[in-house]
Amino acid sequence: MKLASYIHAGRPSWGVVVDGGIVDMARRFPELPSLRSALAAAAQTRIAAAARGAKPDVALDAVTLLPPIPDPEKVICFGNNYREHVLEAGLKIPEYPSLFVRLANTLVGHGGAIVVPRVSSELDYETELALVMGRAGRHVPAAKAFDYIAGYTCFHDASVRDFQLKHSLDAGKNFIGTGPCGPWIVTADEIPEPGRLNLRTRLNGVELQNGNTSELIFDIPAIVAYISSFTPLSPGDIIATGTPSGVGFTRKPPIWLKPGDMVEIEVERIGVLRNPVRAETDADGAS
Amino acid sequence: MKLASYIHAGRPSWGVVVDGGIVDMARRFPELPSLRSALAAAAQTRIAAAARGAKPDVALDAVTLLPPIPDPEKVICFGNNYREHVLEAGLKIPEYPSLFVRLANTLVGHGGAIVVPRVSSELDYETELALVMGRAGRHVPAAKAFDYIAGYTCFHDASVRDFQLKHSLDAGKNFIGTGPCGPWIVTADEIPEPGRLNLRTRLNGVELQNGNTSELIFDIPAIVAYISSFTPLSPGDIIATGTPSGVGFTRKPPIWLKPGDMVEIEVERIGVLRNPVRAETDADGAS
Repeated sequence: MKLASYIHAGRPSWGVVVDGGIVDMARRFPELPSLRSALAAAAQTRIAAAARGAKPDVALDAVTLLPPIPDPEKVICFGNNYREHVLEAGLKIPEYPSLFVRLANTLVGHGGAIVVPRVSSELDYETELALVMGRAGRHVPAAKAFDYIAGYTCFHDASVRDFQLKHSLDAGKNFIGTGPCGPWIVTADEIPEPGRLNLRTRLNGVELQNGNTSELIFDIPAIVAYISSFTPLSPGDIIATGTPSGVGFTRKPPIWLKPGDMVEIEVERIGVLRNPVRAETDADGAS
Repeated sequence: MKLASYIHAGRPSWGVVVDGGIVDMARRFPELPSLRSALAAAAQTRIAAAARGAKPDVALDAVTLLPPIPDPEKVICFGNNYREHVLEAGLKIPEYPSLFVRLANTLVGHGGAIVVPRVSSELDYETELALVMGRAGRHVPAAKAFDYIAGYTCFHDASVRDFQLKHSLDAGKNFIGTGPCGPWIVTADEIPEPGRLNLRTRLNGVELQNGNTSELIFDIPAIVAYISSFTPLSPGDIIATGTPSGVGFTRKPPIWLKPGDMVEIEVERIGVLRNPVRAETDADGAS
């Protein structure tokens, strides 16, 4: 089952993506106004039953897709988690996990713009598999980690490298317009082997990353266990698992995202997350 | 004016702290259910007028104080921002600002417990001045920074040092039960010189930190300008400005917070934020 959040006719909603469009679930379940609330209610079985045989309410190309969870309590990203990427960045293979927090206001949906900031031109791409948590939990043993995962989505951890590397990691990872996520969540039952998924990045059609989640240094169960050792997991939490080699800043000359570019990131069994790149405007600060 | 969030008789509320207690503002302004919503509505003048001459609705010791903003959109903390602290940590004086993101679920109110985690015993104290933002803004010039600050509060950036220093900064700074904040916000009009405030830490009555915000490497206007260069500021955002020297991990032998300890942090003109320390329990993961 593919679960998406979207705006149609000015109204935010969420639903199930089927052939030809989306079955609107916010309309069918008024008590579940958001996909996050549906995960918190463990409503997957009810949702699947409601979607079975239903005709789509709206065509996919008639909606604006939002990040699948537009309002997560947390977005936590693992870093330095693929051997070849660690080596290309000139680092040592880590003994301990490494992570950072992203603000939810950095998230962008499928088709939304990645923003080249006014204060830097060193904007880089990073393709990642993200976990979407389905259950609350603390101190989750690695052996039970998959019980807590509702599904998977693509995460584009776009990074402002000069801020990240010269100032601090979190500054470089928290520019608005740098966290594309989506296009949807594929529920865990449809991805029996999330530790064997191909990931690719294409910039203007040219492939720049091609890795596999089998190369993760800290694998999915280890990631879930580690994060839950310091913070309680909540339904709708997004956990990005790290990027494979091939990023822009390690190339000679480096490759930076520029206004007018189109970036596609693809995770096997999930789909393609496509985002145009544009320059920051005054509207990016408005609220 | 002192603004606090609290629970009384099981009901969350917020109000103005006056001699003898709190004037309940959520009751007087039903359209402003939280202090964050009151800041977003720029309601300070209305609030002050309603508090003038009002008798307190409840005694201060009859309520449970919450973090002044229990639900901030962001909590951003500056690090390595006092010269003597940078030197005691064995680091170089930074050329660029350094910051990290805290999850809102780490916040604790006055009197709430600081939690020694199950997975580490290296829990350290850090006393800080925090800014509370009052207006939305992006690319705020340093010269206009104070127009965006609603007030100030005390922030205790308790840090799990082995996770912070061996794993990653954000892991060590995001354990639940490690972010005391409060006891209240003192509005900016009452603190004309926030760059000249004494800060102190007392552990079981023994003074361990004694600094002054005049020692900040990146001062308050620089902090506001920098953060707003990558993310839009929102009313209720909490920005902690860094800690002076005297923290526990740099001492020989190191000082760690232990169950049964009582920590008081004090920022001049704001007040004393007091929190007991206890061991993690199973309830710390419940949700």
